[in-house]
Amino acid sequence: MKVAILGYGTVGSGVFEVINSNPAGIARRAGEEVTVKYVLDLRDFPGDPVESVLVHDFAKIVDDPEVGVVVEVMGGVEPAYTFVKEALLKGKSVCTSNKELVAKHGAELLEIAKQKKENFLFEASVGGGIPIIRPLNQSLTVDEIQEITGILNGTTNYILTKMREEGLDFDTVLADAQAKGYAERNPEADVEGYDAGRKIAILTSLAYGMQVDYEDIYTEGITKITKDDIAYALTAGADIKLFGTSRAVDGQVYAMVAPRMIDKSHPLYAVNDVFNAVLVRGNFLGDVMFYGKGAGKLPTASAVVSDVVDAVKHQGKHVMTLWNSRKLKLADMNTLVNKFFVRVPENEKEKANCLFSVEREFTAEDVKGQYAFLTAPMAEGDFHAAAEQLTVLNYIRAELA
Amino acid sequence: MKVAILGYGTVGSGVFEVINSNPAGIARRAGEEVTVKYVLDLRDFPGDPVESVLVHDFAKIVDDPEVGVVVEVMGGVEPAYTFVKEALLKGKSVCTSNKELVAKHGAELLEIAKQKKENFLFEASVGGGIPIIRPLNQSLTVDEIQEITGILNGTTNYILTKMREEGLDFDTVLADAQAKGYAERNPEADVEGYDAGRKIAILTSLAYGMQVDYEDIYTEGITKITKDDIAYALTAGADIKLFGTSRAVDGQVYAMVAPRMIDKSHPLYAVNDVFNAVLVRGNFLGDVMFYGKGAGKLPTASAVVSDVVDAVKHQGKHVMTLWNSRKLKLADMNTLVNKFFVRVPENEKEKANCLFSVEREFTAEDVKGQYAFLTAPMAEGDFHAAAEQLTVLNYIRAELA
Repeated sequence: MKVAILGYGTVGSGVFEVINSNPAGIARRAGEEVTVKYVLDLRDFPGDPVESVLVHDFAKIVDDPEVGVVVEVMGGVEPAYTFVKEALLKGKSVCTSNKELVAKHGAELLEIAKQKKENFLFEASVGGGIPIIRPLNQSLTVDEIQEITGILNGTTNYILTKMREEGLDFDTVLADAQAKGYAERNPEADVEGYDAGRKIAILTSLAYGMQVDYEDIYTEGITKITKDDIAYALTAGADIKLFGTSRAVDGQVYAMVAPRMIDKSHPLYAVNDVFNAVLVRGNFLGDVMFYGKGAGKLPTASAVVSDVVDAVKHQGKHVMTLWNSRKLKLADMNTLVNKFFVRVPENEKEKANCLFSVEREFTAEDVKGQYAFLTAPMAEGDFHAAAEQLTVLNYIRAELA
Repeated sequence: MKVAILGYGTVGSGVFEVINSNPAGIARRAGEEVTVKYVLDLRDFPGDPVESVLVHDFAKIVDDPEVGVVVEVMGGVEPAYTFVKEALLKGKSVCTSNKELVAKHGAELLEIAKQKKENFLFEASVGGGIPIIRPLNQSLTVDEIQEITGILNGTTNYILTKMREEGLDFDTVLADAQAKGYAERNPEADVEGYDAGRKIAILTSLAYGMQVDYEDIYTEGITKITKDDIAYALTAGADIKLFGTSRAVDGQVYAMVAPRMIDKSHPLYAVNDVFNAVLVRGNFLGDVMFYGKGAGKLPTASAVVSDVVDAVKHQGKHVMTLWNSRKLKLADMNTLVNKFFVRVPENEKEKANCLFSVEREFTAEDVKGQYAFLTAPMAEGDFHAAAEQLTVLNYIRAELA
């Protein structure tokens, strides 16, 4: 089987390295030898081993009947979408790590793959090296999925971990993460939660078999999380994580990305640094969790190549994935019930206690002049109506006993 | 598709319940309707919904060409082995939760399934509801597996958790676990590590594609763990878990079941109570972990039925599983390098410091007259040679910084 790789960036060079490093092992798993015939990139790489297979023109790949599997690791919607669609229409399977592409066009590309009896696989688009897409499609097939909650973005998890461990504020840690290459120069997609939003959109689409548009998902990032929030959380034995969550309640599905305050009874409590994890709650299974490196060249490449192996094993047979283009209408966030951690100026304590049913009060040694409390479970809409009457310094949804 | 269930015990009745509770969902995933045509059990169940499909004679099932999938949930090697083999030879796929059967005859039964172009699936045989067999076969196909470590037995994990949380000794907690139904009346298979041994044998066979006999695996249970061990562990911020482990070192594979002292930097540190988890370390992926309920009627049944769905989707097509009957020769345990936590009488402190390179000393408020320490990494054989010269009260392999 001849493979073509579109894009020779971090993941693309990892895929090239992984395929070339263990050809016998891969052949044993795939049932035949797998070699890279082309790598597409606009750039040249003089002296790099990729040079001998480097091409600049996609037509060369798509018109070569010997290429049976195309690996798309360019990122971004275009030209990835055009290339992937063309490859599928020519009867080639496609494996991708591109979450933007999958979130936006997954349903359509799966439909083409199905018609062509080929496969469109995207294990690496969520959770990097963590097997989550295939387990969701092939293992968790019996349960009604009640909740999916993931720490889906390594950059924000790293920032929150450092803020907690070193008592630093968001801007300082972000600058450090950028210096270390853990955060992009333009960090918006990570810190505003957009990246996590695309990933929870993909997982939710797969869990319910219908299209969830990430634009419809309520999304809050971590930029408003301060040292004070973390100080209060620590005193309460809690921690703050950025969660992508979808939850089925009474036949309706809620989806959101937002920071959440959790304590150590939560299965995701111990997931720190750049690690990712996804918790799936089924009506029979209870909680199952998948954990690992959510990014990085080789873990992500390993997941992409496991898709290549699967594509080679299933030539001419579409592996069923339930995800049609009918749109899943998400439930109104205002009706979602949560507890809230809230900080207000100290002089609003009495007012806060009138407006909210306070379940618990928080203290933090180094924070003065504030009143921090946990509300009883209440609907989002009711929370915001009451919060408007206070000078809310910050609020965070909370899962605390 | 007509299914027959062999055994109407806890898991069998769960499988019956799960298949009947969501027929539309299962049909959607499997591509056709799935119904239970027979349940085999020696007993009668007057008034139970199973009555209308209950049979006492296996011949009725195996001779019925309408039955395409047989679910074996009787447990034990015989008559399960005879029944499963006969079903496969008649061209029926088999799904089982039976770890004894899979550990002992997995390679042979897979070979028959392959010849017959049917499937022999056993997701529920390790980790109950946790997807681990299918991810190992189909997702982690690219990496060289460097280590698999699991908390594979819920009963022992529950006992160790309670010993730690309540400061009780082993016998007291075991009696309590038996009263609650978490431990068998004859708890040997759990507390001596035999159950975990069968499970790590299965996982190791799958990781390396060869037969690992559980009789060859060094196996230590938790009966020798005392309150003192746990008191020392707690003071050091550590915990003791029963691990099933296999590890590839320099082309050789070590396999063992034994308690291990770990601290919170270990991904399995937070796995408590009856939960199970499996950590897989690959050369590209790094660590990935799978976590969930390792037992229980409905979680286990859910995993069995996910295999049924897979069997229905792959009629006439064998899903490749690398596991041949050639025996994997395990490495000599005496050469395995570990740190050891050791307790000796206080008056042997000086001698211990001569015999061992001591990395750390432990204290525990309520333990008197003992000297507890952590050795530097050393080979098992060297450890035992040195330990013989002391009155060792207990030792536990340790992964501590």
